[in-house]
Amino acid sequence: MTLTLHSYFRSSASARLRAALNLKGLSYDYVAHDLVAGHQRAADYLAINPRGLVPALVLDDGTVLVQSLAIMEWLDETHPEPPLFPADVNGRARVRALGHMLAVDIHPLNNSGVLRYLGDEFGADEAAKKRWFTHWVATNFGPLERMLAESPETGTFCHGETPGFADCCLYAQIWRNRFVEFDLAPYPTIARIYEALDALPAFVDSAPPSQPDAR
Amino acid sequence: MTLTLHSYFRSSASARLRAALNLKGLSYDYVAHDLVAGHQRAADYLAINPRGLVPALVLDDGTVLVQSLAIMEWLDETHPEPPLFPADVNGRARVRALGHMLAVDIHPLNNSGVLRYLGDEFGADEAAKKRWFTHWVATNFGPLERMLAESPETGTFCHGETPGFADCCLYAQIWRNRFVEFDLAPYPTIARIYEALDALPAFVDSAPPSQPDAR
Repeated sequence: MTLTLHSYFRSSASARLRAALNLKGLSYDYVAHDLVAGHQRAADYLAINPRGLVPALVLDDGTVLVQSLAIMEWLDETHPEPPLFPADVNGRARVRALGHMLAVDIHPLNNSGVLRYLGDEFGADEAAKKRWFTHWVATNFGPLERMLAESPETGTFCHGETPGFADCCLYAQIWRNRFVEFDLAPYPTIARIYEALDALPAFVDSAPPSQPDAR
Repeated sequence: MTLTLHSYFRSSASARLRAALNLKGLSYDYVAHDLVAGHQRAADYLAINPRGLVPALVLDDGTVLVQSLAIMEWLDETHPEPPLFPADVNGRARVRALGHMLAVDIHPLNNSGVLRYLGDEFGADEAAKKRWFTHWVATNFGPLERMLAESPETGTFCHGETPGFADCCLYAQIWRNRFVEFDLAPYPTIARIYEALDALPAFVDSAPPSQPDAR
């Protein structure tokens, strides 16, 4: 099966999906859309994804999958090995919840479209955008650190000794945090898991500098 | 199994989970937290959910599940009938994507904590908050309407003739939209699906006015 990934090197929604594709050992054709230049709103891309966001994953038969978290679930259902989730249902719920604390509760507030709109609507300058960004990361990283640090299910990675769904979300968010040079010192468990992920090719290869459109 | 749902009548994240619990025919004990009064940040609730958000679902054995979308996936894995997702993997991806366009791309930007922070940080008044809210709903409802209207997989509900995951997200968002009296006229497919859902007890019973803490 040939997979075509519509992506942007700095997009953290794309990055978490790239990590999941890499963990599954799947190769894909990479189509870059420069979000800063607004290429995701070109008519030819809106015909693929009417919402004009990346990532989108296009299958052999032309089927278009959108929404990174939905695509990651599809990947796990169609390519079960290695799994992105543990086998037990409560563990699966834990891994999804940890991932969603990052990908649902932080990222939608801090993506480039929202930061641009803060400037347009409220006259937010760069410093105000960075305060906004930092606020939502910190608001969620505190509880996330506590949930990771206090659970016996946390291992080398977010859940045990196998990197999975939550780790894909975590690694992409830490990269995204470079926008504000976010300090991980108050979050030792998160920092430790990030370091473990950053030693794995599947994750390093998902990071912005490894993409064909990196600059 | 006794399920305890930590909820707030107006919370749309709680409402989508309530709809899913109702579709599954599951009863639960209801514990209300007044988000306006800040009760979700009380120490006894932070011991249950360190992030201080609703919903949370507590199981018999004390296991706490958080994040509404993760809990809905758990519900479907532990109580498969009736299913919240279709059987085919591409259909499942479509249903998750439609639900995430609502629950991931709109709701995190428009919840009460974000609206409060816009006031604190940018001096946004009620009118500015409503412009913000309306912008993110409209930005996503346009593409959502197009994706629903153009797909042969859309039926009486978001996907075929059985209400599921995306419908739970849609119904809760339409209720949430009352904050700005959002006009559904430009979105006839969304409006039609909402009307179909609003005729089903599982959805009506999930709506804010049906909750014990409604006022």
